[in-house]
Amino acid sequence: MTRLVWCLLSIGLLCLGAVAVACSSTSSPSHSDRERQKAELMRVDAEFSRAAQARGAGEAFAAYAAENATMMPVGEHPAVGRAAIRKEFEGLPAEATLTWKPFAADVAASGDFGYTLGDYEYRAPGPDGKMATHYGKYCTVWKKQADGRWKWVVDIGNASPAPK
Amino acid sequence: MTRLVWCLLSIGLLCLGAVAVACSSTSSPSHSDRERQKAELMRVDAEFSRAAQARGAGEAFAAYAAENATMMPVGEHPAVGRAAIRKEFEGLPAEATLTWKPFAADVAASGDFGYTLGDYEYRAPGPDGKMATHYGKYCTVWKKQADGRWKWVVDIGNASPAPK
Repeated sequence: MTRLVWCLLSIGLLCLGAVAVACSSTSSPSHSDRERQKAELMRVDAEFSRAAQARGAGEAFAAYAAENATMMPVGEHPAVGRAAIRKEFEGLPAEATLTWKPFAADVAASGDFGYTLGDYEYRAPGPDGKMATHYGKYCTVWKKQADGRWKWVVDIGNASPAPK
Repeated sequence: MTRLVWCLLSIGLLCLGAVAVACSSTSSPSHSDRERQKAELMRVDAEFSRAAQARGAGEAFAAYAAENATMMPVGEHPAVGRAAIRKEFEGLPAEATLTWKPFAADVAASGDFGYTLGDYEYRAPGPDGKMATHYGKYCTVWKKQADGRWKWVVDIGNASPAPK
């Protein structure tokens, strides 16, 4: 009987340990896990900018958008969903380019939610026909999708002074 | 012996159940939990706007900011930290008011991270001395602090058309 009690006690302790390990690994990632996730989100955002160069900003914004993503364009009402987002880029001059680079990122403890902050450059012909550069900054909120890929859910930016 | 095997098996299954319940409750909140957290974040954001009326926008933005929060003001470089954030509001006319109202919110599965989207109105005297209203929208990213209170970590907005 004493042996059974010890056996049960040991199993109980092992189970408590398993609960602790399982939960800490899913809800509170280690410091290095979180740093890895931030770096991953910075990489995805930089890849998103390269996609905008390769395929055009409208296609890239639609491809990287989650279902019902909300774009908040300067001077306009929010555009919700891929079709409305793609439309935001229609009518831009063919020579126009939009490039950006993230300078910060953070992710939730659950690793399913995060944001990137960055600087953008929008180049387009001015009224005199010469290319002009407009500088700005942005915040993009990201959610990890069921397939494990990060897609953006909110994108908003505004003007910045020209860099010194 | 058979009794012992059954006993161990039952304990094992109970433990697996405990792991599953414990983990789902910390890393994947139920649908109603998440809805409750979203509603809570909307309430905190609305309370933040009321604080801006009562104590002035500069004081409210500093009080609701997390350590090293990043404010991204239109036409300016980011302001990082409470002192820099407070400074952003200095020199505004005494009659100026900033009010806002969130229209959407979402939170991470871990409940420690979220955002609100909303519309703001900034009222200040125009060049003719008459009060003029400027409309805009914003995204505020929030992080739950160690004491369980939500504080903002990123705030960015831009102009919107006047509501119809």
